[in-house]
Amino acid sequence: MRKFAPVDFTKVSLTGAFWRERLETVLTRTIPSQYEKLESEGLLESLALLDPPPALRIPRNAQGFTTQFFWDSDIGKWIEAAGYALRHRRDATIEAQIDDIVDKLEAAQMKDGYLNLWYQGHEIENRWTNLRDRHELYNCGHLLEGAIAYFQATGRRKMLDVMERYLDHIRTTFGTGEGQKRGYPGHQEIEIALVKLYRLTGDKKQLDLAAYFINERGREPHYFDIEAVARGDDPKNYHFYRFGNHQYSQSHKPVREQDKVVGHAVRAMYMYTAMADLAAELGDAELKRACEVLWNDVTSTRMYVTGGFGPSASNEGFTTDYDLPNDTAYAETCASVAMIFWAQRMLNLDLDGKYADIMELALFNGALSGLSRDGEHYFYENKLESDGSHRRWPWHPCPCCTMNVSRLVASIGGYFYSVGENVVAVHLYGGNRADLDMDGRKVRVEETSNYPWSGRIRIALDPEGSGAFDLKLHIPGWAEGATATINGEKIDVAANTRSGYLTISRDWRASDVVELDLPMHPHRVFANPKVRMDQDRVTLKRGPLVYCLEQVDNPIAVPDLVLPRSAGIAARERADLFDGITVLEAEGVTVAADDWNGDLYRATPPTPQPVTLTAVPYYIWANREPGPMAVWIREN
Amino acid sequence: MRKFAPVDFTKVSLTGAFWRERLETVLTRTIPSQYEKLESEGLLESLALLDPPPALRIPRNAQGFTTQFFWDSDIGKWIEAAGYALRHRRDATIEAQIDDIVDKLEAAQMKDGYLNLWYQGHEIENRWTNLRDRHELYNCGHLLEGAIAYFQATGRRKMLDVMERYLDHIRTTFGTGEGQKRGYPGHQEIEIALVKLYRLTGDKKQLDLAAYFINERGREPHYFDIEAVARGDDPKNYHFYRFGNHQYSQSHKPVREQDKVVGHAVRAMYMYTAMADLAAELGDAELKRACEVLWNDVTSTRMYVTGGFGPSASNEGFTTDYDLPNDTAYAETCASVAMIFWAQRMLNLDLDGKYADIMELALFNGALSGLSRDGEHYFYENKLESDGSHRRWPWHPCPCCTMNVSRLVASIGGYFYSVGENVVAVHLYGGNRADLDMDGRKVRVEETSNYPWSGRIRIALDPEGSGAFDLKLHIPGWAEGATATINGEKIDVAANTRSGYLTISRDWRASDVVELDLPMHPHRVFANPKVRMDQDRVTLKRGPLVYCLEQVDNPIAVPDLVLPRSAGIAARERADLFDGITVLEAEGVTVAADDWNGDLYRATPPTPQPVTLTAVPYYIWANREPGPMAVWIREN
Repeated sequence: MRKFAPVDFTKVSLTGAFWRERLETVLTRTIPSQYEKLESEGLLESLALLDPPPALRIPRNAQGFTTQFFWDSDIGKWIEAAGYALRHRRDATIEAQIDDIVDKLEAAQMKDGYLNLWYQGHEIENRWTNLRDRHELYNCGHLLEGAIAYFQATGRRKMLDVMERYLDHIRTTFGTGEGQKRGYPGHQEIEIALVKLYRLTGDKKQLDLAAYFINERGREPHYFDIEAVARGDDPKNYHFYRFGNHQYSQSHKPVREQDKVVGHAVRAMYMYTAMADLAAELGDAELKRACEVLWNDVTSTRMYVTGGFGPSASNEGFTTDYDLPNDTAYAETCASVAMIFWAQRMLNLDLDGKYADIMELALFNGALSGLSRDGEHYFYENKLESDGSHRRWPWHPCPCCTMNVSRLVASIGGYFYSVGENVVAVHLYGGNRADLDMDGRKVRVEETSNYPWSGRIRIALDPEGSGAFDLKLHIPGWAEGATATINGEKIDVAANTRSGYLTISRDWRASDVVELDLPMHPHRVFANPKVRMDQDRVTLKRGPLVYCLEQVDNPIAVPDLVLPRSAGIAARERADLFDGITVLEAEGVTVAADDWNGDLYRATPPTPQPVTLTAVPYYIWANREPGPMAVWIREN
Repeated sequence: MRKFAPVDFTKVSLTGAFWRERLETVLTRTIPSQYEKLESEGLLESLALLDPPPALRIPRNAQGFTTQFFWDSDIGKWIEAAGYALRHRRDATIEAQIDDIVDKLEAAQMKDGYLNLWYQGHEIENRWTNLRDRHELYNCGHLLEGAIAYFQATGRRKMLDVMERYLDHIRTTFGTGEGQKRGYPGHQEIEIALVKLYRLTGDKKQLDLAAYFINERGREPHYFDIEAVARGDDPKNYHFYRFGNHQYSQSHKPVREQDKVVGHAVRAMYMYTAMADLAAELGDAELKRACEVLWNDVTSTRMYVTGGFGPSASNEGFTTDYDLPNDTAYAETCASVAMIFWAQRMLNLDLDGKYADIMELALFNGALSGLSRDGEHYFYENKLESDGSHRRWPWHPCPCCTMNVSRLVASIGGYFYSVGENVVAVHLYGGNRADLDMDGRKVRVEETSNYPWSGRIRIALDPEGSGAFDLKLHIPGWAEGATATINGEKIDVAANTRSGYLTISRDWRASDVVELDLPMHPHRVFANPKVRMDQDRVTLKRGPLVYCLEQVDNPIAVPDLVLPRSAGIAARERADLFDGITVLEAEGVTVAADDWNGDLYRATPPTPQPVTLTAVPYYIWANREPGPMAVWIREN
């Protein structure tokens, strides 16, 4: 069922300014500074298994919960990001840091393979008693992803060995066999890691374990309830019982029966990613179908225009259809990153532009907004409107988002291409040079562009040997009137585009050049009227970028700015901002309060006054002086 | 300084359908049913001073507070409302009920005059130790108003005697003399009652006590802090410390220095009422000036378009300028009722239409909305927007609003007229027959009208004796293009109107008839752009009535209805609704979601579709099937 495979990011060398800058920032600033935070915030100290354990850095909340339960995952995610960095260029300092962590993990690992720093450091007698809330399997998954990335970067497999021993222990503990617990993760993640391990080693039992976790999920009698009773707890005491009980962890019913995106957004997106992976590897049409239904559900009812997911802080997740408040948007960075993972997995199954569209949307907006320009400040919540109080933070009691964005950017080239049987597919644009391997046949692709600031894209192909194959170019949903040429000759884009991909079939030669023009007219975007929060509002897009009004660029308070339907929108290059970005400008209006003579109400409408609106890409907001921001602009 | 005196409601016989219906409902249903609630909810039981006291009906909250602290006030307020009812027509049942209460109050009164059912029943040792939170003086004030009303209705003065003894005790306890506490009420109210008592008896010491409370208020060192320390409490532990500390009770500074309306809205409005009363009785220009400054402040920055006050539930009061959220509006019924009191007092000082305008606005909208059509259900909070969940209740743990609206309606005729030296002033309209006494000269006034449904008003005067005097007719701010005739001859309204009153000076004869036409064109009202919640929204008024969209009258969900700026608005009499009301109809639009093909976002704007909007008067909403409501309608 797997028709396409993504191309490893090491094969894609980013030459365009946009991604070059983000990547360099992550490599040189984000990843090193994150290590410092792991150290200063106490995460690395947890490796020492001190007895007695040091005082909690993150005090328990009213439910007895502390994010220290899942510090292992943060360490694992940092190793993963650092591992990707090392594949760009080796670094003795970082490698020494990781080796030291690995040595401590190995030393900590119990004889039976168990490895969890919280439980070993605080309450080993309680291990495996609360999969629902305590993240043991989630932690294992992230450590495993770190181990894989570090092995791929350095060939050192000590951490991988540690993790495989831990997996053996997990495999013994959980399953449908006699004496086994029929458990599965409260926070999905390990399934993704297990598929990665299977792809690395070909070891089928890792895939089987992932499939077990996915297939067991949500069956009755419910494991989390059985487990709660065994702890002497009433399942009804569950903090998220009021949020549809096990909907919170998408275990309210078996995954194949799920047709509505619910619960904690990151859990959901990780699970769908794993489902798509398993569908591809196992040829499981039912799982694929469930993914498609869930994809259509979330993208048509529960997604922010920025590719953000999960409006509510109370469950870090989904609420009801079309409930997408802007100023209280949660839209966790991790959820957008995970959506990119899921979209990539869907593209392995079907080359449908709807997946690439959302991958691009979430990448350039909801995910990228999570990292500051300086690479050392973060958004956990990506609100679509702010009164100025929403600011980036240098670290977080729950630092999951920080390393999610660094591991994404450090491996971003891996999302650009797929190869299939006689197919090279391009999903994302941005200057790069890629060395693809299409069933053993080498194809060099060189893209020259200033994407996302310009939609003029030049792609030169240099294939090894001869024989026809298809080049499939994603034509983004926003790119109305796209044109293309091959060696200067016009291609009928409309006639040759299906499901969002333009197919050019030919026996490619080394001198072949495709020129693609994706027109980047600034344009308005409207929300379905069922999204009440966005009624009478409009947002602006240009190319893949969603724009917003940030106070620092505008002369009038952002909430008082109005963009009439009739106003033209102009794109303007601003070399003075952030090494050069394109802003949007429009003749807006505001209403004056100065002719009200102190009246609070009157029968005469407010007097409109012209004002120039300046909008900047959403991903780059909150990198200058604090102030209000709005993605959705009043239209009246 | 007092130039005008309101005319007692017993002199004003309501003949118009609108007020006749409301008054009859209050007399026949509201007041009797409220007695039943006093009984069933345990308030009357508190008169028995049972030992041990019965379990609390209203459990203490986290701050140790229960609304049972001020049950006395509810009893007092009911006696006041019932007293007014008896002045319309005597009723042996009600009189027996009140006599029984009075006997119990007399029996309960302590030898030294103290009378507070909570403290006597629960913790007498703590009396007078917490004026800030415990409402002893507030309770006394309401009981006193009840005593006055009952005395005026029946001539029975037992309750008045009880209260005068209690006041003697209070006068001994509080004051600036040696050994006296320099206390004053945490919840202002008694000041109004004391001025009423002074006006009834001419006993100057009652006025002096009111003046003491007002003048002492907010001085440093702060009495509430001294009192807190004496209780062993830290003044910073005060629950409302975070709301600007003593701003909550308007004791943050001496009242004459106050220029900003802050804190608990009902406390504020009662205090301003008393300040205006004292300014009138004492000729205190400084107090009058403070009232004027505060009046201009609240009406130009902190008032709902319905004449509601206090947006926030957290302090039952004011927040910041222009902060007037609609769906979370608190706008307590009591605050609108108290605003009517204050406006009436301001009209004693100056015949300025701005006071009559707000009196009319608050009366026909923010206050009247507090009472259901059936007279037995109430709003405590008068929200301006609801998703359908805001419903009327039959009683409340804090039933202050219930009796505030019944005492207002039972005495409503008293707000129609004032008399001054050779002046008869008309503030409110509605068919009535009034027997005025203008410095000993009798003037009969007969108004024929169908107000507020029609602005065509016929006023026939029949004065005793001869000699010129001024008839001053309020020309409401909304009545653009008002016309008038005297005995069929046109009067130049514009030329003869000052400060909102049309003056007709003549030697009136028995056959003189003034016809006034206040054009009731339905019209739009806009909010000052600084009220962000109402940006891009409009509301509708006709005459004194603010209108709202209620779901039951409209075919499309209320939040999805839009009223274009260009749409005409038509008034239509609807005999089928509530014995006949006038609704407003307009050709609105809605945007369809059915041509979105399941898309969540798109570049094409939503398609507008015509829909007829029907708006009903705000005061009458929530008397039919539950559903969403909005005062402010989308305009885009």
